[in-house]
This record gives sequence, C-alpha cells and structure tokens, in this order.
Amino acid sequence: MPKKLTSRDEDYSKWYNEIVIKADLAENSSVRGCMVIKPYGYSIWEKMQFELDQMFKKTGHQNAYFPLFVPKSLFEAEEKNAEGFAKECAVVTHYRLKNDENGKLIVDPNAKLDEELVVRPTSEAVIWNTFKSWVQSYRDLPLLINQWANVVRWEMRTRLFLRTSEFLWQEGHTAHSTKQEAIGEARLMNQVYADFVENFMAIPVIQGVKSASERFAGAEETYCIEALMQDGKALQAGTSHFLGQNFAKAFDVKFTSDSGKLDYVWATSWGVSTRLIGALIMTHSDDNGLVLPPNLAPYQVVIIPIYKNSVEQKSVEKVADKLMNELRAHNIRVKFDNRDKLKPGFKFNEYELKGVPLRIAIGPNDINQGTVEIARRDNLSKETVKQKEVLSLIKSRLNEIQNTLFLKAKKFREENITFVDNFEDFKKTLDNKGGFISAHWDGTNSTEEAIKRETKATIRCIPLDTKEENGVCIYSGNPSNKRVLFAKAY
Amino acid sequence: MPKKLTSRDEDYSKWYNEIVIKADLAENSSVRGCMVIKPYGYSIWEKMQFELDQMFKKTGHQNAYFPLFVPKSLFEAEEKNAEGFAKECAVVTHYRLKNDENGKLIVDPNAKLDEELVVRPTSEAVIWNTFKSWVQSYRDLPLLINQWANVVRWEMRTRLFLRTSEFLWQEGHTAHSTKQEAIGEARLMNQVYADFVENFMAIPVIQGVKSASERFAGAEETYCIEALMQDGKALQAGTSHFLGQNFAKAFDVKFTSDSGKLDYVWATSWGVSTRLIGALIMTHSDDNGLVLPPNLAPYQVVIIPIYKNSVEQKSVEKVADKLMNELRAHNIRVKFDNRDKLKPGFKFNEYELKGVPLRIAIGPNDINQGTVEIARRDNLSKETVKQKEVLSLIKSRLNEIQNTLFLKAKKFREENITFVDNFEDFKKTLDNKGGFISAHWDGTNSTEEAIKRETKATIRCIPLDTKEENGVCIYSGNPSNKRVLFAKAY
Repeated sequence: MPKKLTSRDEDYSKWYNEIVIKADLAENSSVRGCMVIKPYGYSIWEKMQFELDQMFKKTGHQNAYFPLFVPKSLFEAEEKNAEGFAKECAVVTHYRLKNDENGKLIVDPNAKLDEELVVRPTSEAVIWNTFKSWVQSYRDLPLLINQWANVVRWEMRTRLFLRTSEFLWQEGHTAHSTKQEAIGEARLMNQVYADFVENFMAIPVIQGVKSASERFAGAEETYCIEALMQDGKALQAGTSHFLGQNFAKAFDVKFTSDSGKLDYVWATSWGVSTRLIGALIMTHSDDNGLVLPPNLAPYQVVIIPIYKNSVEQKSVEKVADKLMNELRAHNIRVKFDNRDKLKPGFKFNEYELKGVPLRIAIGPNDINQGTVEIARRDNLSKETVKQKEVLSLIKSRLNEIQNTLFLKAKKFREENITFVDNFEDFKKTLDNKGGFISAHWDGTNSTEEAIKRETKATIRCIPLDTKEENGVCIYSGNPSNKRVLFAKAY
Repeated sequence: MPKKLTSRDEDYSKWYNEIVIKADLAENSSVRGCMVIKPYGYSIWEKMQFELDQMFKKTGHQNAYFPLFVPKSLFEAEEKNAEGFAKECAVVTHYRLKNDENGKLIVDPNAKLDEELVVRPTSEAVIWNTFKSWVQSYRDLPLLINQWANVVRWEMRTRLFLRTSEFLWQEGHTAHSTKQEAIGEARLMNQVYADFVENFMAIPVIQGVKSASERFAGAEETYCIEALMQDGKALQAGTSHFLGQNFAKAFDVKFTSDSGKLDYVWATSWGVSTRLIGALIMTHSDDNGLVLPPNLAPYQVVIIPIYKNSVEQKSVEKVADKLMNELRAHNIRVKFDNRDKLKPGFKFNEYELKGVPLRIAIGPNDINQGTVEIARRDNLSKETVKQKEVLSLIKSRLNEIQNTLFLKAKKFREENITFVDNFEDFKKTLDNKGGFISAHWDGTNSTEEAIKRETKATIRCIPLDTKEENGVCIYSGNPSNKRVLFAKAY
C-alpha cells in the first residue's frame, strides 16, 4: 500500500498541509491567502460554534451583528488599535465596476468613495461607536455582546487555518460599570475558552497574561490560553482582553452611575477563530492522518460493510442498518458507508485519514457469530465484540478516547516544559528540544526583544498560576521575581 | 398614554421604520447602507437559521465556506452574472494603510493590489471556480453545498432589513449530472422555502417562476416565492435558480458520465436573506408594534409580576418562578421579567412593541385565587385562568396564534388578488387597491417594460399553478394563454 502521508519526522509542515488537504478539511482558493473550508472541515467548525455559543449564552451573552466595513475615520479613533492593524487592512475604495472600451470590467473611477472603508480586522471601532447610543445609565450595563463573523487581516505568509487573510471567528465585546467587573469578565471568558479547548478539543492549555509587547493593540491586559503542538512550537489558542476605558474614551461612551456620577465605561473583548482547527490537527494527528476527539468529530463512528456477493451484502447491511439506528437513537453520530463498488480497504483508509474515532466493520463471519469488529483511530487497536454489547462499548470507548487524547497531549506538554536558568541552556533547549521554556525575565521590553531577535522565541505568557520566586533574568542577569514561559510559536 | 407608533394608515413606511427601531431589531450604522442587527432582531435570525439549516441538511445539503473576495477576472467569467452585479460592487483595491506626514491614516499607494477584489455580491463565481477541482466523475455528483455568509451589494436607497448594502443570507450551490435533476433541485428548494416561510413565519406565499427580465443574472429559470405586505406591495421572499450549464461552461466544470461521456454539469443556486425579517414585520405587525409568530419568537411567553410591596413581590415571584420553570421544562421559550423599579405598564408596553405572543401577568389577587392573566399579542384579548391549567392553555394558545396569523395573512392576500382584463382596470386597481393583479400578458419583454414604465408594477411571477386560459394581453391586445401576477414590489 502506498504511503498516505509525509511523516511528521520527515517534514512536519508538509505533513500538516497534507492532512488538511487529504482529510478534506480546507484548501487554498483563487484569492491569495483566503481558504475554502470544505464540508468536512466546516462541520467541525459548526460543532465548535454550537458548543461555544451555548457557553457564551449560559454566561449571559447575546449575539448581534455589526457591519463588515469600518469607515477609516472610525477605524483610527482608538490610536493604538488602529496602529496595530493598519498594515494589514484590506481597503474598499470604490463601489462600482464598469466596462472599458473593450468590454472588460474595470473599476469605475467615478465611483470612488468619499471615505475609504476598512474591511474589519476586528470590530472594536464599529461596535464601540454603536455602544455609544446603547449605554446611558448603569441600568444598561453590563452589555454582553458576541458576534460570529468573518474578518480580514492581510497576511503575507499564509497557512491553511493557522494564518489566513480571511478567517471566521467570534468576537465578544462587553461594557461594564466598574474596572473590577470588566477584569472579571475578561478572566471568565479566558476560563470559558480553556474549558472548551480542554473538554471538547482535548487540548491542554496554559492560562496566562501576555507581556506588554504581545498585548492586543488597545488592551490594558491580554489574557490567553497557550497550547503546545507536537513539533514543540506553541500556539495561541484564544485571547481575552481587558480594554480599560480606552475605547470608551475614544468613542465617548459614558454612563450615569447609581449615584448620579458620569464616567466612562470599562470594556473587554475576546475571540477564538478557525485557527483552533489548526491546533486540533497539530495536537492529536499522527502519520496516518487526522485524529479527532469524539466530542467534536462530525462522525464519531463509521460503519463499513464487508461482503463478496449480493446475498452477503443484504444480510450485512441489514445488521449495519439496525446498528446505525440504535446508535443514532442514543445521540451517537454515525455514518453508515454503504457506497457500493468501493473496497472496504479503501474506506478504512479514508476514515483513518479523516480521523473518525471508531470504525465498525461487519462481515459475513460476524453475521454468523453475532459479532462486529471495532477499531480505535487513536491507538489503532481492534477488538471483536458481541453485537448486543456494541452500544455500551461504543459509549465507553468514545469517552476513553476523549480522555486518552487529552492525557496524552497533557503528558507531552508536561514533558516539554523545561526550566532553564541561563541563556546558553535556553538556546540549547530551543534548538534541541523545543517546547515551553520556563525562565526568569527582568520584565523589560528590551530584554524580550533581544531574546526574540537572537532566538525567535517569544514570551508566550506569564502563567496565571506562576509563583513568586527570586531569580535572575537569563539574558540581562537583572533580578526577577517570577518565571515566564518562552517558546517559538505559530 | 402617549401614542407609541405612527399608524400604518398615517405613514406605512414611517410605521415600519419605527417598529424596527423601537422593537430593538436593528439600526443604521455609521457605514452608509449597512445595518447593525441588535440582539433581539438577531435572535429571530438565529431561529430562522436553525430551522432552515435543519431543512437543508434533511434534504442532503452540507455547509461549507468560501472566500469573501472574488478576483475581478473570476467575477467576470460568467458574463451575464457579472453584468448583473457590476454596478453594485464594493471593490478592494489596497491592502494597507499608512500614516501621512501629519500622522493621519491614509491608504498606502504602494500597497495597490495587482488585481482588484470584489466583495462578494453572490458567490457563484468563486464557488464554481472551486467546484472545478471537486467534480470529475458522475460519482462526485450531486454536489449539494450551502453557505451562511454576508454579502455586499452597494445600494443607493437602503431600508433596514429590506434593502441594505451588506446583508446576511444563505446561498445554496449545487451541481448535477442531468438537467432534469438540477431543475428538480431548484424546485425542491423553492418548496423548502415556501414550507419554511408558511410554517414558521406564518407568511403565505405564491410559488412561481420569474419572467426572463426578472431572472437572476446568469440563470435559465428563476423560481420564487412572493408574499404580499399589508400596504398592498409584494415582496420577493426567496429565489431558487436553475442555472443550466452557464457556470459550468464559464468555469469549465465537466464530469465523466456513467457511460464514459464527458459533459458540463448542471447547476442551481438559491438563497434567502435577512430581508425575510422585513417581510415578517410587514405581514403581521399592527399599530401597537411588532407581532411575532410563536414558531420564531425569541420569547413565546413573558411573565410579568405585579405587586405593591416586598411581601406581595415575594409571593408573586415565587409563583412566577415556578411557572417559568414548568413552561421551560416543556420547551416553551419564556422570559420572566423581574426587573424591579419598572412599572408593569411599562413592561406591558415593551413586550407589546416587541411582539411577544403571550403575556402572563401575576398579581396578589391571582395568588389568592390561584389564577393568572394571559394576554394574546395578536388580538389583544385577555383571559383569567387557573394556574394548574396554564401549561396546556399556553400550548394551545401558541398553536392558535401561529395558525391565526397565517390564516389572517392568507385571507388578506386572497382578498388582494384582483383579476383584471384591461389596462384601465389594471391602473385603477393598482392606484386604489394595490395587491396582486392577475392579468394576461403577451409574454414579451417590451410589453413588460412598458407596463413597468407606466405603472411601476412588475411581473412578480408566473404562478406554478397557473392554468392555461385563452385571453388577450391587457397592454398589447395580443393573444395570451395564461395569466401572470403583477404588483408593485419592495
């Protein structure tokens, strides 16, 4: 059998791209840096959306929708935010095409916009300009809004899911009457992200705050969840920002307090995107293809019939059909692949590539013996079980796989957090092992920059559970009171 | 009590705008022609999405996502389609902003795109360019894809929901091996739209096909559902297009048939948008505000407590709380509005404006007598009922309201289809009564244009159930073999 994929050892980056394509998740489009999310990939995103949306609603948030376009004058109202995104903005300058003398379409020079429109790279500006009329009194607060949308950030080097010029995401935007409440909200939503990513995606994350230089443009504090990929590089899986009163001041959003005082409101914003699918792939998958955690798999189980003639086909399909209905009645997502003319081996390969957690094969022997064969995608093990035991076994195997994937990823992550105390070891660890490096840092921007310049490693976060500890900065030798996490990152 | 709204008789258009604003559905944004969909309005859209999405999936469709941008060269590949949309395209010409000498942001002239990008007004071009690599053999067909997305059509005169430069919609795009199958798909999806709009939105629709001049740009046949608004104007609520092989030829999408023959594939596309919310408002609402059909109402029931002191408050809220939980346990969407400091009358007004189908009021007398007061939004009737009967009563009242709204709208629609046989009566009916006019037409473009020019009425559709009938065209006097439906339209 020909090798299906480049192996991770051979070329990790190529392996990743091949999985995305061969598992039918996404592909590049005719538009530079923009991807097509294919049905199988999109159905994973739909599951993610569904679960996250419920979590947002349970924590009191409501969905709304704001315009795709941001007039340039609004875009630049919050200076730091504008500065952070200005260099990657797609800009609409005209609103009409026309035919030239040869009948080819050209931009109509007479249809130039008075003010250019930025395609939203993020929606703080347009949303805070709207909040202005929504908030007058403390009774209007907190305002807890979320939006599911597409955003555009013009990227020079793109990779499917991980870095695309257009991506899908959700962005939460909230307004509060006190600083404390806003910080609480930013931390709560970071926790919601951590819960989702750990419980559904089976990806262990470290919660922390960003250093000043890695903060979201316009934020006072950026909370984040950081995950570790199998190649030892970190991936920022979600961020939640405490925005202080920056946007309220830029857009003049004030409220009258309980006691009649006028003050600017406090803000947060938070988001996760289709980038998470990249993290999902790189955390669990192997050299045979995608490995999906059952909680997010479009199909948790695939049933494949095996037969040599139409008599066998009939009896096998009858059992398969019954089993499918039984599992579905218990809310297990099952696909019965009864495509004729395709060999079972071809199908086995396909679902292995696509990461379906469990495969059930039913052949003539199984019919005689009242059994089926169940194969696990995560560890490739197989077992033959009685048909009447399938339902309860499937349920427990799905749970096991979900847990196993998480624990395996967590073990890998733990093994790849290295504590180092000098810059030589820092560089050696980066080169030879990768992963997270826990090290003392003097807290200055210049040291952070120097380390990044020399090693390409950045401070991924200052973990929320970091303990105070006296030490010296690995780079400057200046005193430090806590360790932070460095890594090379996606 | 001050009048809440302009009445329909006074100024229908103003009445509509006031409902959209005062019921918290949407508002204009800082971007010309783009709206903000507020949480209450968006939750109606979410309900619509959920139901439609299920119907699409049940008919075998899968969701996917395609890029927002269409390179100009792709956009113009299918000529008629390009011609139809060229005049309303937002065009991205640059990918970066920079600071000018005064520190203000300007478009960076050095970041001009080699090829301009059209913000999708519809996605046939980008999708058919993708289908090219997805379809090789008859085994890849049918390809049944749907996308939930935002699209942009630059409109000069905009109205919230009805006509906005950016709107949300779904667009189905399918590929088939035979003409017949594609026509079947286009008709099926038009039927799905009719079912959804009638059963969930309680809006009766007429299914038909468009005249050639009203067809979607690039279609061979456009099926549609047409609804009638209370002011006697028609509204196109959804369309489903049989695209022939036009896009397959423009993008060179061929397949090998069962018998080894190479042929272009056959296509459909179909869509409904946030415009439907405009139809919802204009079909059912009255001079007191929005009226929502229970099947789409974010809250089907609102419970309002009435009390004069904290003792009464406590006992009333206890009963209200219990009732809320009981109704929720039966999947009824209930809001218990226990905001203190707001008078019941204020709340009554608010939910009347917002169209909540049923209101339950509970006061101290009700506690003594074991009753509650139930008020219907659609006919403003009230009844006092025993608490233990509330659940079953609410269920049957919700069904009644759903049916009543549909039947009322259907009666209005039937009363406003006028059969006319000469152009004088046609004009008189249009001026004095409005509504649909069923009349003979000679089938020519020139007659259609002349009638439109003289009366502003257009052919809304040739109903699918039209019977052959000999007659003469009301305008040209030429022979005609069937009646078509004319109306002024949104």
